[in-house]
Amino acid sequence: MTTADFDIVEVIRAKRDHGELSDAQIRWALDAYVKGEVADEQVAALLMAVLLNGLDPRELSTWTAAMIDSGERLDLSVLSRPTVDKHSTGGVGDKVSLILAPLVAACGAAVPQLSGRGLGHTGGTLDKLEAIPGWRAVLSNEEIVAQLEEVGCVICAAGDGLAPADRKLYSLRDVTGTVESIPLISASIMSKKIAEGTSSLVLDVKVGIGAFMKDLDRASQLARTMVGLGRDHGVATVAVLTDMDTPLGRAAGNGLEVAESVEVLQGGGPRDVVELTVALAREMLALAGITGVDPAQRLADGSAYEVYRAMIAAQGGDPDATMEIAPVVHRVLAESDGTLARLDAMGVGVAAWRLGAGRARKEHAVSPRAGVVCCAKPGDAVVRGETILELHTDDEATVPRALAALDGALDIVEGSVATAPLILERVYG
Amino acid sequence: MTTADFDIVEVIRAKRDHGELSDAQIRWALDAYVKGEVADEQVAALLMAVLLNGLDPRELSTWTAAMIDSGERLDLSVLSRPTVDKHSTGGVGDKVSLILAPLVAACGAAVPQLSGRGLGHTGGTLDKLEAIPGWRAVLSNEEIVAQLEEVGCVICAAGDGLAPADRKLYSLRDVTGTVESIPLISASIMSKKIAEGTSSLVLDVKVGIGAFMKDLDRASQLARTMVGLGRDHGVATVAVLTDMDTPLGRAAGNGLEVAESVEVLQGGGPRDVVELTVALAREMLALAGITGVDPAQRLADGSAYEVYRAMIAAQGGDPDATMEIAPVVHRVLAESDGTLARLDAMGVGVAAWRLGAGRARKEHAVSPRAGVVCCAKPGDAVVRGETILELHTDDEATVPRALAALDGALDIVEGSVATAPLILERVYG
Repeated sequence: MTTADFDIVEVIRAKRDHGELSDAQIRWALDAYVKGEVADEQVAALLMAVLLNGLDPRELSTWTAAMIDSGERLDLSVLSRPTVDKHSTGGVGDKVSLILAPLVAACGAAVPQLSGRGLGHTGGTLDKLEAIPGWRAVLSNEEIVAQLEEVGCVICAAGDGLAPADRKLYSLRDVTGTVESIPLISASIMSKKIAEGTSSLVLDVKVGIGAFMKDLDRASQLARTMVGLGRDHGVATVAVLTDMDTPLGRAAGNGLEVAESVEVLQGGGPRDVVELTVALAREMLALAGITGVDPAQRLADGSAYEVYRAMIAAQGGDPDATMEIAPVVHRVLAESDGTLARLDAMGVGVAAWRLGAGRARKEHAVSPRAGVVCCAKPGDAVVRGETILELHTDDEATVPRALAALDGALDIVEGSVATAPLILERVYG
Repeated sequence: MTTADFDIVEVIRAKRDHGELSDAQIRWALDAYVKGEVADEQVAALLMAVLLNGLDPRELSTWTAAMIDSGERLDLSVLSRPTVDKHSTGGVGDKVSLILAPLVAACGAAVPQLSGRGLGHTGGTLDKLEAIPGWRAVLSNEEIVAQLEEVGCVICAAGDGLAPADRKLYSLRDVTGTVESIPLISASIMSKKIAEGTSSLVLDVKVGIGAFMKDLDRASQLARTMVGLGRDHGVATVAVLTDMDTPLGRAAGNGLEVAESVEVLQGGGPRDVVELTVALAREMLALAGITGVDPAQRLADGSAYEVYRAMIAAQGGDPDATMEIAPVVHRVLAESDGTLARLDAMGVGVAAWRLGAGRARKEHAVSPRAGVVCCAKPGDAVVRGETILELHTDDEATVPRALAALDGALDIVEGSVATAPLILERVYG
């Protein structure tokens, strides 16, 4: 089938008029777009038609396949261990990858965690690790495979060779109001994860005020769609829906989250981070077919921490480096005695971003020191005048706008409050 | 309100999510697009959202106003006569403008018919008149006003200064599958007609297999939408829905249609052309407030023909020039005795286009000689072997593809057939 066999306007019209696109039309359209034979404005119209009229499972599977086939697919079959990865849809204070990758590696799997950077109020795993002096995000495919074999895990940048169609489509969706489509989000995430070569995958789908998906129904639909795409492409996939109404752990900000991750790897740290990390590790090990190993124990006995140190060192980082403290720390104090009933993840995420921990555009730099520390979490008793939040920043001038983001973001009530469960739902393939 | 007050992605999202756009958002978006501050891909996504989710009457009225305000609006109030124009949504063999403009001028109104060229299977009024040696389509605004005052009518190209937003939007719609939207079609047509400065307007909305609107419901919706926009902008507007299942008159093709128009102006010509022209003239005169003048009589007594000759001569054309005959005339013969029951307008239109009368892209040239002459029309008795159609072309090689377009385009049956009425419905403001 040659390029001349299709007309992009006919493809757009078909989807506009609620028709089904053929596999050949989908593959041709995405291929022609990557090659520059079809224009941005044509694909923008197609994406809006897809957002409004949907893609059925067969169309979406082919769409995702076309995105994967736009680039290379890593071959991790040479590894001696089973491969399993985790992807989070993004939340505030979500530093789980930093702990989970070495933990699951310590349990016997290989974890190829190819990641991105943060945008907006949610942090990016690479930004966090770059707070460690010397740590290098960009590895060659050969380095990735070698590190997986030697250390058991790698967290690094997903290379330009993986699903290049996704990069081009994502940039277009970002400026054309076509981000919020469950099929398009699913294809974007899964094409990159499938191209990275993992055999199995656990998805942490965040739900709540600080997440991309605000309600459980849409999050559940996204989870089922992605799990289906994993199955279609031979990657055993499970999704866990987890709460993102309040930040995960206490720290939101790059170096602050590295420090908290090390606390957890050393057997301490916030209970919710430990709970979620261990739960995700169990799902990953089950998918990898590894039995008889308890991740909670591998965390407690320091073996996960040893793998973490090896992983950081293998990428040029100093695992013993302490994180710098920001020159400005502004405290938000409790205005009354009582129980902290609510601490809004979006407020904390936007505050951390404004303090310098995040970026508005992908070419911006982030501060390793900036962020928010939550000294109290929902359910904690607080006394008037005690510190609820610490705002860390390099620049005092950022504080007023960070405080504005926190306006109305917390409630202190009399009496005790029930806190929501962290793990809301599981979706199996 | 400054440019920085809006974000195009928020405007796109609002329409995508079935929201109403504010007047300020609509005006800002179209203005920013014309200025190049908003990109084609962003407006493409917005147009698809508009096509699928609609515009309410207030949004559409503002959208149209913004298109008008993107350019100049001619001031015809200096004229001593009332102004009235006609617009046809396009059909096969529709040469009515050539007769109607001088006819209505002969009855006392001024007719400022600013027109476009043809694209695809329907011909353009300017292409037809350019078959006349020396005739000039491009006039300055001053020439338009002077000719209206002196001759009473002008048919010329709508200048680049009228609704430039429409030109940019139409080019984008054409390549992004966003043409087929009643609000967008209405805004496109009405913005140009309102900008041309006419006080009143009759719309000939074609319905049927050879028209853009295939069914009466959609055509009626388009008519009501345009009539409403006329009212909103102070242009008294009436729409007449007319049949386009079969070609209008006998000739489809540029010079062929000029010749047929002259026949009508000289008191002869096909009955359907005369009927429709006189009916549209009556609507126009009523809107212009001109009473006591019978257009049928002004056609019969040659006064319309005198105005036609003056109009052609004023634009450099030779009203006495005879139209050249194409070097190749291929005849399609009746295969049996009977009554011609059907002669498909789309088949004839596409055949004429392929013979050289039309263009696929706006930069292509058209032949003044090419086209189709329908020697029989639905309802006519025919005898086996008599000529039903003449295919006129400069190039013998075009004939097979023209014949292919006519495959299945006509039926000859035994006995008599009922023919459809020409005027189907009227929509008043």
